[in-house]
Amino acid sequence: MGALKLKQKKVTFDDIAKYTGFSKTTISRYFNNPDSLTLENQEKIAAALSALNYHENKLAKVLANGKSEFVGIIVPNLYMHYYSEMLNRILSSYEQYGYKFLVFVSTGRKEEERKYLKELLAYNIEGMIILSHTIPSKELASYNIPIVTIEREDQYVSSVNTDNYMGAVQATSLLIKNKCDILIHINSEFPSDIPAYGRIKGFLDICEKENIRHELILTDPGNTYKENYDCILSLLQDIKKKYPNMKKGLFMANDTHANVLLNIIVREYGTLPDEFRIVGFDNSPIASEAIIPISTVGQQIEKIAAEAVELLVEQMNERKKRKPSPQKGITHKKVTPILIRRDTTD
Amino acid sequence: MGALKLKQKKVTFDDIAKYTGFSKTTISRYFNNPDSLTLENQEKIAAALSALNYHENKLAKVLANGKSEFVGIIVPNLYMHYYSEMLNRILSSYEQYGYKFLVFVSTGRKEEERKYLKELLAYNIEGMIILSHTIPSKELASYNIPIVTIEREDQYVSSVNTDNYMGAVQATSLLIKNKCDILIHINSEFPSDIPAYGRIKGFLDICEKENIRHELILTDPGNTYKENYDCILSLLQDIKKKYPNMKKGLFMANDTHANVLLNIIVREYGTLPDEFRIVGFDNSPIASEAIIPISTVGQQIEKIAAEAVELLVEQMNERKKRKPSPQKGITHKKVTPILIRRDTTD
Repeated sequence: MGALKLKQKKVTFDDIAKYTGFSKTTISRYFNNPDSLTLENQEKIAAALSALNYHENKLAKVLANGKSEFVGIIVPNLYMHYYSEMLNRILSSYEQYGYKFLVFVSTGRKEEERKYLKELLAYNIEGMIILSHTIPSKELASYNIPIVTIEREDQYVSSVNTDNYMGAVQATSLLIKNKCDILIHINSEFPSDIPAYGRIKGFLDICEKENIRHELILTDPGNTYKENYDCILSLLQDIKKKYPNMKKGLFMANDTHANVLLNIIVREYGTLPDEFRIVGFDNSPIASEAIIPISTVGQQIEKIAAEAVELLVEQMNERKKRKPSPQKGITHKKVTPILIRRDTTD
Repeated sequence: MGALKLKQKKVTFDDIAKYTGFSKTTISRYFNNPDSLTLENQEKIAAALSALNYHENKLAKVLANGKSEFVGIIVPNLYMHYYSEMLNRILSSYEQYGYKFLVFVSTGRKEEERKYLKELLAYNIEGMIILSHTIPSKELASYNIPIVTIEREDQYVSSVNTDNYMGAVQATSLLIKNKCDILIHINSEFPSDIPAYGRIKGFLDICEKENIRHELILTDPGNTYKENYDCILSLLQDIKKKYPNMKKGLFMANDTHANVLLNIIVREYGTLPDEFRIVGFDNSPIASEAIIPISTVGQQIEKIAAEAVELLVEQMNERKKRKPSPQKGITHKKVTPILIRRDTTD
C-alpha cells in the first residue's frame, strides 16, 4: 500500500493468525474460499482485519493466480450521451460481476489506441470492451484475449449492437403511417460494415418495398451545433424548394440533428407545421428536452451494456477453466430498439 | 498474461538477453532506466521485444516498487453532462502523466462507496479523485492517501472547484445590467459547505449590495424532465401573478432548468418576450442547443480537471520521495467561470 507504508507496518497473515488464534491456513482459506469456514469464524476474522487495519493486496493475488479482475475499456469522446451512458451502464456491472474497469478515452488515433492496448495487456486485464472505431477488428482479434465490441466494425470479434436496420424500419414505417408524401433520410456516409449503416439500408428497403417517393441525403453536417445548424438549414431550404405542398417525413440520423432541424422550423413558423414530420434516433435527453418533444428510435443502452458484459464474462470464464474449449465462433448479438412516439409525428 | 498463457510460453529477461546478445542487467536497465542506454541499443531491444512478442508485466513491477500508476475515480451518474465531461478530461490526462484510471460510478449509497474504496486500496492505487457526494471528507482523509475532490464538501481534503460565488455574481450583474425590475434565483436547498451553495450566496449578496428587489426560491424540482417541467411551470405561474408588468430576471441553478423554463415560455408566447430574461449555469450542450440559445455561466471543466490532476500528481510525487515532507495543509483551488452571453439576455 504505497501510501500507507509511511504510517504503518504491513499487516501479514502471521499477524492475523496471532491476533485471532487461528492457523495461517485458516486465514488463507478466509481469503480464497471463505465459505469453507463457519459464518462465526468468518466474522471473527473480519473483525480482526478491521482491528488490525489490514488491507488486502489484490495485486499479489493476481500474480499468483493470473486473475486480475480487470476489464479494459476504450471509449470515444464522452461528449455524446450514447457513449457516456453506455460507459455508465458498463461500469455499474461491477455490482453484479465484481470486475474493475480500466478506462481509456480515445481521440481516434491508431497509435494512441495501440498504446492503450499495450498498457491494458501489461496490467493482465482479463478482457476488453471496445467502443472506439479506430483499430480494425482483425487487429483486435490478434491480441487473443476476450473482447466484445459495441457499435463498430466487428467482423473478427464478438459484438453487441442495436438492430439499426429494424430501427430504421420502425422510423420509416411511422412516417408512412403519418401519410407523408415524400420521405427523406439525412445521414453521414460510412462504410457498409459499420452497424449504423443498417439505418440507411432499412430506410431504403422499406421505401422501395412500399413504393414511396423518397430521397437519401448523405452529407457531413460537422461536429458542432453551429456547423450542424448551417448544414441542415441549407438542406431544408433545398427540400422546401424541391417538394412544395408535399407532406415531408424527415428521418434524421440522430436526435441531435433532429433537434437542430426542429429548432430551425419552429423559429421560422413559431411551431411545427403539419407539412413536416420528424423522427430522430437514440432517445438522447435532447429528444425529450426539445421545444417540441421529438419522436425517436430508442436504443436500449442498458440492455446493450448488460449483454456486452455478459458475453465478455462468458468468454473470460471459459479462459479460466483448466481445459478451455477451443475458441468458439464469434458472437454478434443484436438488441431491438424501441420506437418512442412523441409530438413531432402524428 | 492470463489469456496469453494459453498460447505461448512467457518471455523472460533471459530470452531477451539471449536474443539480443546483451546482458540481463542491460535488459533490466532498458525497463527501469532506458535513458542510461544509447538510442541505438534501446531500438535493438525494442525490436527484440516485438519479435519475441514480449508483454511487460507491470503488476510484478508494482509489487516490487509500490508504484501502481493507478488512480481511482468515483463519479456520480454520468447522465449529467458535467460529470461525463469531467471524467472525459480526467481520463485524457493519461497522455500527459501516464496514470491509469480505475473508475467506479456511484449511485450514492455510503456502503457501496466504501466497498469501492476498499477495492481501490487493494489494488495499490496511488491516489484518488472523488466527485461523488456521499462519504464525508473527514472519512476520506482518514484513508491517508492523496485525494482531490471536485464540487463537493471538502473540509478535510484538497479540492478544485468552480468559483460558484463569482459565477452567481456574473449572472446576477448581467440581469441587473439588463434593467430587470425583479431578480429571481431558483435553486435547491443544500448545506452551506457544498461549493454550489456559493451560487445562492453570490446572488443574495449582489442583490442586497445593489439594493435590487429579489426573491430566492428554494425547491426540489425533481430528477426527470417531466418533474422539472411541472415544478417550474407552477413556479412561473406564481411569479407572473406576483410580479405583473415587471421585467423579470431569472437566474436558474443550471442549464437544464433554464431550458425547461425557456420551453414553457416559448410554447406560451411563441418567443421569449422582453419581460423575461434568463441566465443558466454550466454551459452544458443544452444551453446552445435550446430553441433560443441560453446565456449561461460556463464552468471551465477542462481547466478544473487539469488542476485536479496536477494537484493530485504533486501529492503523489511527494509520497514517492525517500523522505516525504510531512503532509502539507490541504489546498482548495478555485477556477473562475466565464459568463457566456447568448440570446436569452440583452
